[in-house]
Amino acid sequence: MYNQPALKKIINSSLVNISYNTESERLIDPVKYVLSIGGKRLRPVLALMACNLFSDQIDDAVVPVTGLEIFHNFTLVHDDIMDKASVRRGFQTVHSKWGLNQSILSGDVMAFITNECFLQSPSHLLQKIFRIFNKAAIEVCVGQQIDMDFEKAIIVSQNEYLRMIELKTAVLIAASVKIGALFGGADDKEAEIMYDFGRNLGLAFQIQDDILDTYGDVKVFGKVSGGDIAAGKKTFLYVKAMEIAASDLRKRLQELYSSETSDTEAKIKNVTEIYDHLNIKFISENLATEYLKTALSFLEKAGVPQERKEELIQMTGSLSGRDR
Amino acid sequence: MYNQPALKKIINSSLVNISYNTESERLIDPVKYVLSIGGKRLRPVLALMACNLFSDQIDDAVVPVTGLEIFHNFTLVHDDIMDKASVRRGFQTVHSKWGLNQSILSGDVMAFITNECFLQSPSHLLQKIFRIFNKAAIEVCVGQQIDMDFEKAIIVSQNEYLRMIELKTAVLIAASVKIGALFGGADDKEAEIMYDFGRNLGLAFQIQDDILDTYGDVKVFGKVSGGDIAAGKKTFLYVKAMEIAASDLRKRLQELYSSETSDTEAKIKNVTEIYDHLNIKFISENLATEYLKTALSFLEKAGVPQERKEELIQMTGSLSGRDR
Repeated sequence: MYNQPALKKIINSSLVNISYNTESERLIDPVKYVLSIGGKRLRPVLALMACNLFSDQIDDAVVPVTGLEIFHNFTLVHDDIMDKASVRRGFQTVHSKWGLNQSILSGDVMAFITNECFLQSPSHLLQKIFRIFNKAAIEVCVGQQIDMDFEKAIIVSQNEYLRMIELKTAVLIAASVKIGALFGGADDKEAEIMYDFGRNLGLAFQIQDDILDTYGDVKVFGKVSGGDIAAGKKTFLYVKAMEIAASDLRKRLQELYSSETSDTEAKIKNVTEIYDHLNIKFISENLATEYLKTALSFLEKAGVPQERKEELIQMTGSLSGRDR
Repeated sequence: MYNQPALKKIINSSLVNISYNTESERLIDPVKYVLSIGGKRLRPVLALMACNLFSDQIDDAVVPVTGLEIFHNFTLVHDDIMDKASVRRGFQTVHSKWGLNQSILSGDVMAFITNECFLQSPSHLLQKIFRIFNKAAIEVCVGQQIDMDFEKAIIVSQNEYLRMIELKTAVLIAASVKIGALFGGADDKEAEIMYDFGRNLGLAFQIQDDILDTYGDVKVFGKVSGGDIAAGKKTFLYVKAMEIAASDLRKRLQELYSSETSDTEAKIKNVTEIYDHLNIKFISENLATEYLKTALSFLEKAGVPQERKEELIQMTGSLSGRDR
């Protein structure tokens, strides 16, 4: 069995070994850049873990699932344009480094480099696996659309928010796990169970991400706390707070959140105080824990010996805490 | 045998029948819009003609080759952002109608809708056909990159220009024809011959397009003449003129072409006069005709009865004139 660091190493080396059309370095330099500035490689690592759950042989899966990471980074390059984000993972974003046109085009080519990876799947799995990935890719676009629509919406319900993160984040993690399982020889029923495992894991992961943006330790989490509050981004914390606050407090939170003050420190402090008053961190952590429990209950159903599940259980646990 | 109007009708009806993820109409409305405002459907029509060259049965090819049209329109949506173009085919471009973020995202989803089309290929052809398409898709991105780089370049050689249009335009037409041939049951050797037919056809097509932008009849061509000159876009006409002009005239043409005057009418008139003086229209038409002849010489090699080739020969002829 492979452990998480070993799998991350395999993915990183696979990313380095991608062969590009080298006729234009200008096109490919931003691709190499964005793929080199780190990240957890969560999706392909989970895919290989799911493969390894069913099989000791993971070689055939490595190149195709590397496509999951390239697709994920493709979405980041374009999302950063839409969000006008200048920094990601402590590095300049592609559009702030190379400009709008370059970030659109270098992003675009990543979608087709992703295809190249999937096209190296064994023939008997290609159609099935590519369809699972591509369905998720379309859903990610829908999720990003709904997330953009939320910017203009005044009220977003908890269910609407959860559906958005399901599409934007969870379905790709779910598809990654399902694809990995199929590479490992899982049958359709087992692959579907693994999809549900990944879907719940992805929901927990995104809610945790929302919590960490406000309550995370800067040193551990690597970015300044409160970025979402400063930007007025609708997160699970905000949506939940708006749902449970009494009408006066709700009105105050809404005004505070949408205000474009230059004193972001005060804004973050005031919003966090309202969250604390409403016990939002506790409520959010509880929901994330619920999703993690549901995820694990699906993993339990997978018909393989318990000891094969240990890596995935540990990975699931690590996503629930701060050590990521 | 199907004729061109019949095939265009089949593609248009296939485009209307695409099933979208309807969870966000905001995401899909621009996709439907851009696919509804016309165009020659050149790539899928050529693909079906190439299929029909080898087989009477074209049904299996229709949905996959519809992907070629969706991909082409995906590139147009993003290219129009990069070129800051507000009008295409007499209609507002997606980004001028819906804004930057929407045009990036609705463009993106078209890349994956393209994949959905190709994924409906018969299993035994899927990997081969998808690889041919995807190689072309990456090359189109490289071509667009080189085209963008030309904006800043002072001198572009004829060979550099021809390589750019080969990548940006011709390889997708070549891939379309090759894919169609494979759907029709062509073997690898015949498919390769058809690729070369399409590549030369595509080169001729783009040079004709450059000629028509300056010398086309507004009523027939549907857009105002001289747009490329007004924008200072490096075309075959400009590149050739810069190559053959004596040094004084070359200097004058370069200054004129790069000037950002408000009197575009005078700019177009002055540049066209230099082109006329240098016989650029004649030289360009000659090269386009050369490529068309080469294209037809490849078509001759295809091992099917002459009468099956008539539609493609007629199509090739129509691209050499103004009746498109």
